[in-house]
Amino acid sequence: MTTFPESHQDLLQADVGTLTTKGHDGYPQVTALWFLFDEGVIKLSLNAARQKVKNLQADPKCTFFVLDTANPYRTLEVRAQAKIDADDDYAFAQKLGTKYGGVDFGEIDEPGETRVVVSLVPVKVNTYGS
Amino acid sequence: MTTFPESHQDLLQADVGTLTTKGHDGYPQVTALWFLFDEGVIKLSLNAARQKVKNLQADPKCTFFVLDTANPYRTLEVRAQAKIDADDDYAFAQKLGTKYGGVDFGEIDEPGETRVVVSLVPVKVNTYGS
Repeated sequence: MTTFPESHQDLLQADVGTLTTKGHDGYPQVTALWFLFDEGVIKLSLNAARQKVKNLQADPKCTFFVLDTANPYRTLEVRAQAKIDADDDYAFAQKLGTKYGGVDFGEIDEPGETRVVVSLVPVKVNTYGS
Repeated sequence: MTTFPESHQDLLQADVGTLTTKGHDGYPQVTALWFLFDEGVIKLSLNAARQKVKNLQADPKCTFFVLDTANPYRTLEVRAQAKIDADDDYAFAQKLGTKYGGVDFGEIDEPGETRVVVSLVPVKVNTYGS
Protein backbone atom coordinates (compact mmCIF):
# COMPACT_ATOMS: atom_id res chain seq x y z
CA MET A 1 0.00 0.00 0.00
CA THR A 2 1.40 3.38 -0.97
CA THR A 3 -1.68 5.47 -0.20
CA PHE A 4 -2.90 6.83 3.13
CA PRO A 5 -5.98 5.00 4.40
CA GLU A 6 -9.02 7.02 5.42
CA SER A 7 -8.79 5.68 8.99
CA HIS A 8 -5.48 7.50 9.61
CA GLN A 9 -5.86 10.61 7.44
CA ASP A 10 -6.24 12.79 10.55
CA LEU A 11 -2.65 11.97 11.53
CA LEU A 12 -1.52 13.77 8.36
CA GLN A 13 -2.77 16.96 10.04
CA ALA A 14 -0.82 16.37 13.28
CA ASP A 15 1.61 18.99 14.56
CA VAL A 16 4.60 16.71 14.77
CA GLY A 17 5.93 13.62 13.01
CA THR A 18 9.25 11.85 13.28
CA LEU A 19 11.70 11.37 10.45
CA THR A 20 14.19 8.53 10.45
CA THR A 21 17.25 8.80 8.23
CA LYS A 22 20.32 6.60 8.12
CA GLY A 23 23.31 8.20 9.83
CA HIS A 24 26.80 7.82 8.35
CA ASP A 25 27.66 5.48 11.25
CA GLY A 26 24.81 3.17 10.27
CA TYR A 27 22.55 4.03 13.20
CA PRO A 28 19.06 5.29 12.47
CA GLN A 29 18.74 9.01 13.27
CA VAL A 30 15.28 9.96 14.54
CA THR A 31 13.99 13.49 15.04
CA ALA A 32 10.60 15.05 15.69
CA LEU A 33 9.72 17.74 13.21
CA TRP A 34 7.09 19.87 11.55
CA PHE A 35 5.51 18.80 8.29
CA LEU A 36 2.78 19.76 5.86
CA PHE A 37 0.49 17.38 4.00
CA ASP A 38 0.43 19.39 0.81
CA GLU A 39 -1.50 18.35 -2.29
CA GLY A 40 -1.46 14.72 -1.21
CA VAL A 41 2.24 14.66 -0.33
CA ILE A 42 4.04 14.77 3.03
CA LYS A 43 6.54 17.60 2.76
CA LEU A 44 9.21 18.89 5.15
CA SER A 45 11.07 22.19 5.20
CA LEU A 46 14.65 21.60 6.32
CA ASN A 47 17.65 23.83 6.79
CA ALA A 48 20.14 22.48 4.25
CA ALA A 49 22.94 22.54 6.83
CA ARG A 50 21.27 19.90 9.02
CA GLN A 51 22.70 16.40 9.37
CA LYS A 52 19.38 14.82 8.36
CA VAL A 53 19.56 16.55 4.97
CA LYS A 54 23.09 15.24 4.46
CA ASN A 55 21.89 11.78 5.45
CA LEU A 56 19.05 11.95 2.89
CA GLN A 57 21.43 13.13 0.18
CA ALA A 58 23.62 10.08 0.90
CA ASP A 59 20.67 7.68 1.17
CA PRO A 60 17.13 8.86 0.31
CA LYS A 61 15.50 5.86 1.98
CA CYS A 62 13.72 7.21 5.04
CA THR A 63 10.68 6.62 7.22
CA PHE A 64 8.15 9.15 8.44
CA PHE A 65 6.12 8.15 11.47
CA VAL A 66 3.17 9.78 13.19
CA LEU A 67 1.85 8.64 16.56
CA ASP A 68 -1.56 9.73 17.80
CA THR A 69 -0.66 11.59 21.02
CA ALA A 70 -4.17 10.85 22.35
CA ASN A 71 -3.68 7.11 21.70
CA PRO A 72 -0.04 6.18 21.13
CA TYR A 73 -1.03 2.71 19.88
CA ARG A 74 -2.53 4.36 16.80
CA THR A 75 0.24 5.06 14.32
CA LEU A 76 1.06 5.76 10.70
CA GLU A 77 4.37 4.58 9.22
CA VAL A 78 5.43 5.82 5.79
CA ARG A 79 8.54 4.29 4.26
CA ALA A 80 9.57 6.62 1.50
CA GLN A 81 12.08 7.93 -0.95
CA ALA A 82 13.04 11.51 -0.14
CA LYS A 83 13.01 13.92 -3.07
CA ILE A 84 15.02 17.03 -2.23
CA ASP A 85 14.40 20.35 -3.98
CA ALA A 86 15.80 23.80 -3.35
CA ASP A 87 13.53 26.31 -1.63
CA ASP A 88 15.75 29.33 -2.21
CA ASP A 89 12.91 31.85 -2.06
CA TYR A 90 11.39 30.14 1.02
CA ALA A 91 8.08 29.77 -0.85
CA PHE A 92 7.40 26.34 0.64
CA ALA A 93 8.83 27.27 4.05
CA GLN A 94 6.30 30.11 4.19
CA LYS A 95 3.46 27.76 3.22
CA LEU A 96 4.45 25.33 5.98
CA GLY A 97 4.88 28.24 8.39
CA THR A 98 1.21 29.15 8.02
CA LYS A 99 0.31 25.77 9.58
CA TYR A 100 2.28 26.83 12.67
CA GLY A 101 0.83 30.27 13.29
CA GLY A 102 2.88 32.08 10.66
CA VAL A 103 6.41 31.04 11.62
CA ASP A 104 8.97 32.96 9.54
CA PHE A 105 11.87 30.63 8.75
CA GLY A 106 13.79 33.53 7.25
CA GLU A 107 14.06 34.91 10.79
CA ILE A 108 15.04 31.53 12.27
CA ASP A 109 17.80 30.62 9.82
CA GLU A 110 21.25 32.21 10.00
CA PRO A 111 22.43 34.54 7.21
CA GLY A 112 23.78 32.52 4.30
CA GLU A 113 21.87 29.38 5.19
CA THR A 114 19.49 27.84 2.68
CA ARG A 115 16.42 25.69 2.96
CA VAL A 116 15.13 22.68 1.02
CA VAL A 117 11.75 21.05 0.51
CA VAL A 118 11.81 17.33 1.19
CA SER A 119 8.91 15.51 -0.48
CA LEU A 120 8.29 11.96 0.67
CA VAL A 121 7.37 9.49 -2.09
CA PRO A 122 5.83 6.49 -0.30
CA VAL A 123 7.03 2.98 -1.07
CA LYS A 124 5.09 1.37 1.82
CA VAL A 125 2.44 2.69 4.18
CA ASN A 126 1.57 0.79 7.38
CA THR A 127 -1.10 1.70 9.89
CA TYR A 128 -1.75 0.32 13.35
CA GLY A 129 -4.64 0.86 15.74
CA SER A 130 -8.07 2.25 14.98
CA MET B 1 26.50 11.00 25.95
CA THR B 2 25.43 7.42 26.67
CA THR B 3 23.48 8.07 29.87
CA PHE B 4 19.92 9.34 30.31
CA PRO B 5 19.80 12.92 31.56
CA GLU B 6 17.69 13.71 34.62
CA SER B 7 15.53 16.11 32.56
CA HIS B 8 14.12 13.26 30.45
CA GLN B 9 14.13 10.36 32.92
CA ASP B 10 10.32 10.47 33.11
CA LEU B 11 10.11 9.43 29.45
CA LEU B 12 11.73 6.12 30.45
CA GLN B 13 8.49 5.40 32.31
CA ALA B 14 6.24 6.16 29.31
CA ASP B 15 3.80 3.54 28.04
CA VAL B 16 5.05 3.51 24.49
CA GLY B 17 8.30 4.08 22.63
CA THR B 18 9.22 3.53 19.01
CA LEU B 19 11.92 1.20 17.78
CA THR B 20 13.63 1.72 14.46
CA THR B 21 15.43 -1.19 12.85
CA LYS B 22 16.89 -1.47 9.38
CA GLY B 23 14.70 -3.52 7.04
CA HIS B 24 16.27 -5.89 4.53
CA ASP B 25 15.24 -3.49 1.75
CA GLY B 26 17.26 -0.70 3.40
CA TYR B 27 14.27 1.30 4.60
CA PRO B 28 14.02 2.08 8.30
CA GLN B 29 11.23 0.08 9.95
CA VAL B 30 9.50 1.97 12.75
CA THR B 31 7.02 0.50 15.22
CA ALA B 32 5.46 1.65 18.48
CA LEU B 33 5.94 -0.83 21.29
CA TRP B 34 5.97 -1.56 25.00
CA PHE B 35 9.20 -1.38 26.95
CA LEU B 36 10.54 -1.58 30.48
CA PHE B 37 13.32 0.54 31.94
CA ASP B 38 14.81 -2.24 34.04
CA GLU B 39 17.88 -1.83 36.24
CA GLY B 40 19.06 1.14 34.19
CA VAL B 41 18.52 -0.53 30.81
CA ILE B 42 15.78 -0.12 28.20
CA LYS B 43 14.47 -3.62 27.51
CA LEU B 44 11.90 -4.94 25.07
CA SER B 45 10.04 -8.25 25.01
CA LEU B 46 9.60 -9.39 21.42
CA ASN B 47 8.06 -12.41 19.79
CA ALA B 48 11.02 -14.04 18.02
CA ALA B 49 8.97 -14.50 14.85
CA ARG B 50 8.62 -10.75 14.29
CA GLN B 51 10.38 -9.01 11.41
CA LYS B 52 11.98 -6.49 13.76
CA VAL B 53 13.77 -9.31 15.58
CA LYS B 54 15.08 -10.65 12.27
CA ASN B 55 16.20 -7.14 11.36
CA LEU B 56 18.09 -6.80 14.67
CA GLN B 57 19.73 -10.18 14.18
CA ALA B 58 20.98 -9.00 10.77
CA ASP B 59 22.00 -5.54 12.02
CA PRO B 60 21.88 -4.74 15.76
CA LYS B 61 22.16 -0.98 15.18
CA CYS B 62 18.80 0.47 16.15
CA THR B 63 17.23 3.59 17.62
CA PHE B 64 14.68 3.85 20.39
CA PHE B 65 12.68 7.05 20.56
CA VAL B 66 10.21 8.38 23.10
CA LEU B 67 8.06 11.42 22.48
CA ASP B 68 6.28 13.18 25.34
CA THR B 69 2.63 12.84 24.30
CA ALA B 70 1.81 15.95 26.38
CA ASN B 71 4.50 17.95 24.54
CA PRO B 72 5.62 16.26 21.33
CA TYR B 73 8.58 18.66 21.01
CA ARG B 74 10.13 17.00 24.07
CA THR B 75 11.87 13.81 22.98
CA LEU B 76 14.48 11.23 23.90
CA GLU B 77 16.50 9.49 21.18
CA VAL B 78 18.64 6.48 22.08
CA ARG B 79 20.90 5.09 19.37
CA ALA B 80 21.88 1.66 20.54
CA GLN B 81 23.24 -1.79 19.93
CA ALA B 82 20.59 -4.44 20.46
CA LYS B 83 21.61 -7.39 22.60
CA ILE B 84 19.22 -10.30 22.06
CA ASP B 85 18.75 -13.02 24.67
CA ALA B 86 16.33 -15.91 24.84
CA ASP B 87 13.39 -15.57 27.24
CA ASP B 88 12.24 -19.18 26.97
CA ASP B 89 10.56 -19.22 30.37
CA TYR B 90 8.94 -15.79 29.79
CA ALA B 91 10.56 -14.49 32.99
CA PHE B 92 11.27 -11.07 31.49
CA ALA B 93 7.99 -11.00 29.54
CA GLN B 94 6.16 -11.44 32.83
CA LYS B 95 8.18 -8.63 34.45
CA LEU B 96 7.34 -6.30 31.58
CA GLY B 97 3.71 -7.46 31.68
CA THR B 98 3.36 -6.15 35.23
CA LYS B 99 3.97 -2.62 33.90
CA TYR B 100 0.92 -3.07 31.67
CA GLY B 101 -1.60 -4.35 34.19
CA GLY B 102 -0.39 -7.93 34.24
CA VAL B 103 -0.47 -8.82 30.55
CA ASP B 104 0.26 -12.51 30.03
CA PHE B 105 2.35 -12.92 26.89
CA GLY B 106 2.01 -16.69 27.15
CA GLU B 107 -1.67 -16.20 26.27
CA ILE B 108 -0.92 -13.77 23.45
CA ASP B 109 1.71 -15.81 21.63
CA GLU B 110 0.79 -18.76 19.45
CA PRO B 111 1.79 -22.28 20.53
CA GLY B 112 5.39 -23.00 19.55
CA GLU B 113 6.37 -19.34 19.38
CA THR B 114 9.22 -18.06 21.52
CA ARG B 115 10.09 -14.72 22.98
CA VAL B 116 13.35 -12.79 23.35
CA VAL B 117 14.56 -9.96 25.57
CA VAL B 118 16.13 -7.14 23.62
CA SER B 119 18.42 -4.98 25.78
CA LEU B 120 19.47 -1.67 24.29
CA VAL B 121 23.09 -0.69 24.89
CA PRO B 122 23.27 3.07 24.19
CA VAL B 123 25.96 4.45 21.91
CA LYS B 124 24.43 7.95 21.74
CA VAL B 125 21.61 9.61 23.68
CA ASN B 126 20.05 12.85 22.43
CA THR B 127 17.36 14.89 24.14
CA TYR B 128 15.28 17.77 22.85
CA GLY B 129 12.91 20.10 24.62
CA SER B 130 12.62 20.76 28.31
